[in-house]
Amino acid sequence: MTQIPDLRPTEQRPARIAPQSGTGFRLSRGETLVVIDPMGEQVADLMAFAADEPAEWLSSGRTFDYNETIYLTSGHKLYSNRSRVMFTLLRDDVGRHDFLLTPCSPETFELLYPPGTAEGHPSCFGNLVAAFAPFGIQPDQIPTTLNIFMNVLVDASGRLHIGPPVSRPGQRLELRAEMDLIVGLTACSAEGSNNGTFKPIDFYVLPAKEDQSRLGGTQDRKHSH
Amino acid sequence: MTQIPDLRPTEQRPARIAPQSGTGFRLSRGETLVVIDPMGEQVADLMAFAADEPAEWLSSGRTFDYNETIYLTSGHKLYSNRSRVMFTLLRDDVGRHDFLLTPCSPETFELLYPPGTAEGHPSCFGNLVAAFAPFGIQPDQIPTTLNIFMNVLVDASGRLHIGPPVSRPGQRLELRAEMDLIVGLTACSAEGSNNGTFKPIDFYVLPAKEDQSRLGGTQDRKHSH
Repeated sequence: MTQIPDLRPTEQRPARIAPQSGTGFRLSRGETLVVIDPMGEQVADLMAFAADEPAEWLSSGRTFDYNETIYLTSGHKLYSNRSRVMFTLLRDDVGRHDFLLTPCSPETFELLYPPGTAEGHPSCFGNLVAAFAPFGIQPDQIPTTLNIFMNVLVDASGRLHIGPPVSRPGQRLELRAEMDLIVGLTACSAEGSNNGTFKPIDFYVLPAKEDQSRLGGTQDRKHSH
Repeated sequence: MTQIPDLRPTEQRPARIAPQSGTGFRLSRGETLVVIDPMGEQVADLMAFAADEPAEWLSSGRTFDYNETIYLTSGHKLYSNRSRVMFTLLRDDVGRHDFLLTPCSPETFELLYPPGTAEGHPSCFGNLVAAFAPFGIQPDQIPTTLNIFMNVLVDASGRLHIGPPVSRPGQRLELRAEMDLIVGLTACSAEGSNNGTFKPIDFYVLPAKEDQSRLGGTQDRKHSH
């Protein structure tokens, strides 16, 4: 009998989100999502809903409230609208992500870009709508996303400026799921957020610690013997 | 026959939201909501949904995107998640309002306040839930609110600090509705946002320009004769 090969993405062979596209998937409690910028200066938009109750969603406002900062990095927790922890941020190679702005949409390109840009232009919003549709999540449920690697600056007068991402090739953000989630993830479609180019985003999922232990794979487990 | 008196709130006799409470009401396209801080240093949380389709909601992210600032004042437009204009800000006496943080909730008082604060403490979130319930809007639909008169400062490192409101007695913010809306409005319940005290919020509604004209009440109409 042929053994079915394990085709799950790994660090050596991550899944690749093509430029200006997106994907949706389930992430179980304890698993760690690793998001990588393979070529540098590329934003990834992330949104998440509770798997058992998609009325619970990742909340920028609750996350700002409880962390008392707009710049989220290693050790910070990302909260849902019900004030429950959805993710803990682990390794962060970049230290600059945005939770102020919404995913780019057809209207973004109409309102903020030169005339003619919007026509047929892919968008993170459109890609997230498609990513979440198989899970029964409606477009109107998509709020402000975590814009990973996006470099949004706020000056003293409150003006917002989008700089080129400071992420270099291979840098990553790791997010541990603290509940079962449905996740949408994109390679951002907006040239203005990615220093004028469109590149892919890579990702893979590390198993929960107990799963790693069961497989004999972790340092922690070895030390407990 | 007894004439029914007109008890609609006016500038001379505004409606008063008692300290730590809230209210919900319909606002028609063209009407202007006038929110007044009658005693000074008091925050009011505001949320709005499209009256004909409550899946459309006031979006902090879209509003930040399109105005390119976190500090919103006269002339700025407030957008829905569908990128439609919900409000235009007219007169603003204060110039400092927040659209980063969510309404205070029981969890706010648990996580950010001294132990024991949360027990039985009213909250803007609870008051908005009650305000929207008669319109069939569910708690999970309430996102980041516009926190009128709230003085949130962002330092260069991204840290958030809540200062005392800079609003003085009688100062106001006027918001013209650009579509038919269901509005929730509170007198904020969180002592940390109101310089340690709980005060009321006053409001009234100015009719749409055409209604004013029909009543012969506006300068514009007179000039057109």
